[in-house]
Amino acid sequence: VPTPQQNVSSFERNTRLEAFSDGVFAIVITLLVIELNLPALGHDSTDRELFSALWQVRHKLVAYFLCFLFIGQLWVAHTNFLRLLVRTDQVLLWLNNALLMFTSLFPFVAEVVGDHPGNPGSVALFGALFFATGIAFGAMGVYSGRARLLHTAAMAGSVQRGNRIATWIGVGSLLPLALAWYSPPLALGCYFALIIAYIRLQRLFLIEL
Amino acid sequence: VPTPQQNVSSFERNTRLEAFSDGVFAIVITLLVIELNLPALGHDSTDRELFSALWQVRHKLVAYFLCFLFIGQLWVAHTNFLRLLVRTDQVLLWLNNALLMFTSLFPFVAEVVGDHPGNPGSVALFGALFFATGIAFGAMGVYSGRARLLHTAAMAGSVQRGNRIATWIGVGSLLPLALAWYSPPLALGCYFALIIAYIRLQRLFLIEL
Amino acid sequence: VPTPQQNVSSFERNTRLEAFSDGVFAIVITLLVIELNLPALGHDSTDRELFSALWQVRHKLVAYFLCFLFIGQLWVAHTNFLRLLVRTDQVLLWLNNALLMFTSLFPFVAEVVGDHPGNPGSVALFGALFFATGIAFGAMGVYSGRARLLHTAAMAGSVQRGNRIATWIGVGSLLPLALAWYSPPLALGCYFALIIAYIRLQRLFLIEL
Amino acid sequence: VPTPQQNVSSFERNTRLEAFSDGVFAIVITLLVIELNLPALGHDSTDRELFSALWQVRHKLVAYFLCFLFIGQLWVAHTNFLRLLVRTDQVLLWLNNALLMFTSLFPFVAEVVGDHPGNPGSVALFGALFFATGIAFGAMGVYSGRARLLHTAAMAGSVQRGNRIATWIGVGSLLPLALAWYSPPLALGCYFALIIAYIRLQRLFLIEL
Repeated sequence: VPTPQQNVSSFERNTRLEAFSDGVFAIVITLLVIELNLPALGHDSTDRELFSALWQVRHKLVAYFLCFLFIGQLWVAHTNFLRLLVRTDQVLLWLNNALLMFTSLFPFVAEVVGDHPGNPGSVALFGALFFATGIAFGAMGVYSGRARLLHTAAMAGSVQRGNRIATWIGVGSLLPLALAWYSPPLALGCYFALIIAYIRLQRLFLIEL
Repeated sequence: VPTPQQNVSSFERNTRLEAFSDGVFAIVITLLVIELNLPALGHDSTDRELFSALWQVRHKLVAYFLCFLFIGQLWVAHTNFLRLLVRTDQVLLWLNNALLMFTSLFPFVAEVVGDHPGNPGSVALFGALFFATGIAFGAMGVYSGRARLLHTAAMAGSVQRGNRIATWIGVGSLLPLALAWYSPPLALGCYFALIIAYIRLQRLFLIEL
Repeated sequence: VPTPQQNVSSFERNTRLEAFSDGVFAIVITLLVIELNLPALGHDSTDRELFSALWQVRHKLVAYFLCFLFIGQLWVAHTNFLRLLVRTDQVLLWLNNALLMFTSLFPFVAEVVGDHPGNPGSVALFGALFFATGIAFGAMGVYSGRARLLHTAAMAGSVQRGNRIATWIGVGSLLPLALAWYSPPLALGCYFALIIAYIRLQRLFLIEL
Repeated sequence: VPTPQQNVSSFERNTRLEAFSDGVFAIVITLLVIELNLPALGHDSTDRELFSALWQVRHKLVAYFLCFLFIGQLWVAHTNFLRLLVRTDQVLLWLNNALLMFTSLFPFVAEVVGDHPGNPGSVALFGALFFATGIAFGAMGVYSGRARLLHTAAMAGSVQRGNRIATWIGVGSLLPLALAWYSPPLALGCYFALIIAYIRLQRLFLIEL
């Protein structure tokens, strides 16, 4: 016997899922800026002192850039994924909420990485959130496939290949976690490369509907 | 004699109600993160010191998670409620504004609970806001029923049953308020259980339209 | 000879005006909460100390409530106004930007009023912003009437009467500015009454289209 | 052989591009206010002391106003540009992300300019961001022309003229960068004039579609 949920809500597209997610992505990506602050400068500070203060917060700027790139990539991937989704249900809404919860923690982690760039713990914290976000997104993909929420075109070989590669990138994001204890900057560089890999991967999902 | 309001605006769906509410929910849920801060660490801090600082703010993380879950649940419930709504009027807009006002206070309360987890007063403050939010949502439901703003399908037994259970959960949310003076963590655990109850309840509202 | 602007853009409805304005209103109303902070409390603080700290920030809560009510009213009025608008042009976009700029200053003013509730200057600052916001909104109304951006139904007697009353409320909002030097709380009470007057006025704009 | 991307996504309009961009613009423009803070005042402060404190932060208010005007102009220009766009692709999404990243840095720069108004370095920082934003926007225009993402009407002479003038304004925004070392206020005045020039330019893009 089908439950009411299976009967009904799974046959409707939830446009508010897009509106709410776009809102959260837009806010998180913009909130990153409030972690940026110059160290205190005198009132008669010179331009040299100001640029030297900027140089002192260079790690904050790197953390800002890395998190902006990651959340921007997440938004693009989310756009491409929802394009393939023809129905939503309550389980998917909550998997999406989990994704948004991990995403919302990035301003906190950006601050920790920016303040303690040489501390392996801060890079590992970034990596753990990177991995958790990938898991949540992957769970949305797997669930929507099983619950038949996707457009039939999503069975195409290119999408299946994209899913496999995304899984490998997700698993691969565990490696820099260990690397953080060897060299924090190298680990951050690996995360940068993984984000680029995620970005390049997107074209596999851009199939004709 | 019908007033102009009854004549007109009640026959139109207000899409900006959705946009504005989605915006507020998205911002509140994302603003929770700015209450998260690590205690000051030296520049040469080790990974152990960083993880120990994270452990020190574990109560902030619990408060973050609990508020995120509650606002996420509120957004899902709001989505399901507005699906049943075929008209809006100015009274409903203001009941919704009241709901959004209580919701907007959660970042403040999350900070108080995170900073004073063992203080019965902070848990009671969380509980009072939990209850007030439930009252505002309940008032939207009752009013829209009386003012005939709902789809006729909302007269279905499953929706009526959902309303009754939601009322009981709302009344039940007064109990942990008293429990806070006996054991703050136990009271927070009860609120967690009540949020899960609200989440499970949603499928009763997912009727076919 | 008509300019390109008159030819074209004035014949289209700008849905992004709604999206952008809803976004700004939603963010301002939610940002008010970040001004709310309890005074520092010890780690072993009791419930009494916490409630006494809450009582100490009661003026912040009053400022929060007053600003929330004002921005909520502004959003409802903006909704009702845009309902009557059938076209937009660049001048209207910029009048709307001016309205949003004044609105965006409320979190700053809420902080000043909350921190210095007995200072006539802080209440006068609130009043000046209240007045400036009214002027900007009034300018949008007058301009859109002259530039023929409104639905013909907006010529109805009830809308005209609403405009006249709104003008009087706007002019009237100058009075509490002077009253602030006699009694700041009384002046705030007058602003509360003026917001209620704005809210009640809205039904005159809810004509059938 | 066309890649999947060329085949598909370039033939669809991405409404989420608008929603996400509107969200980011709305949040950045509203976040500017959190940089506004009065210097600490005693509890029994007089109105004179409060107005004198306001006068002390006048540079913050100027920076607020300038950034609000710039982001408001950017939003209007973005609206007019997307009106001419009939398709999007992944490259355009990322050029837009770059634009949003530079835009999101304005609250940081507004704080630096407001705190160090007489420092040539802070004005130069503002100018560098002003220029970078113009470059990102210009790149969106050039790319979308080459990738045939624009409406055919965008080949009109008025749009072409608008593009040429926008390029000159963008190049011209490098001049006040040097001027900052001669007179910071004069340089800020030039940026104000350049924003007005951008605003007046918009009517060239308002062609009939």
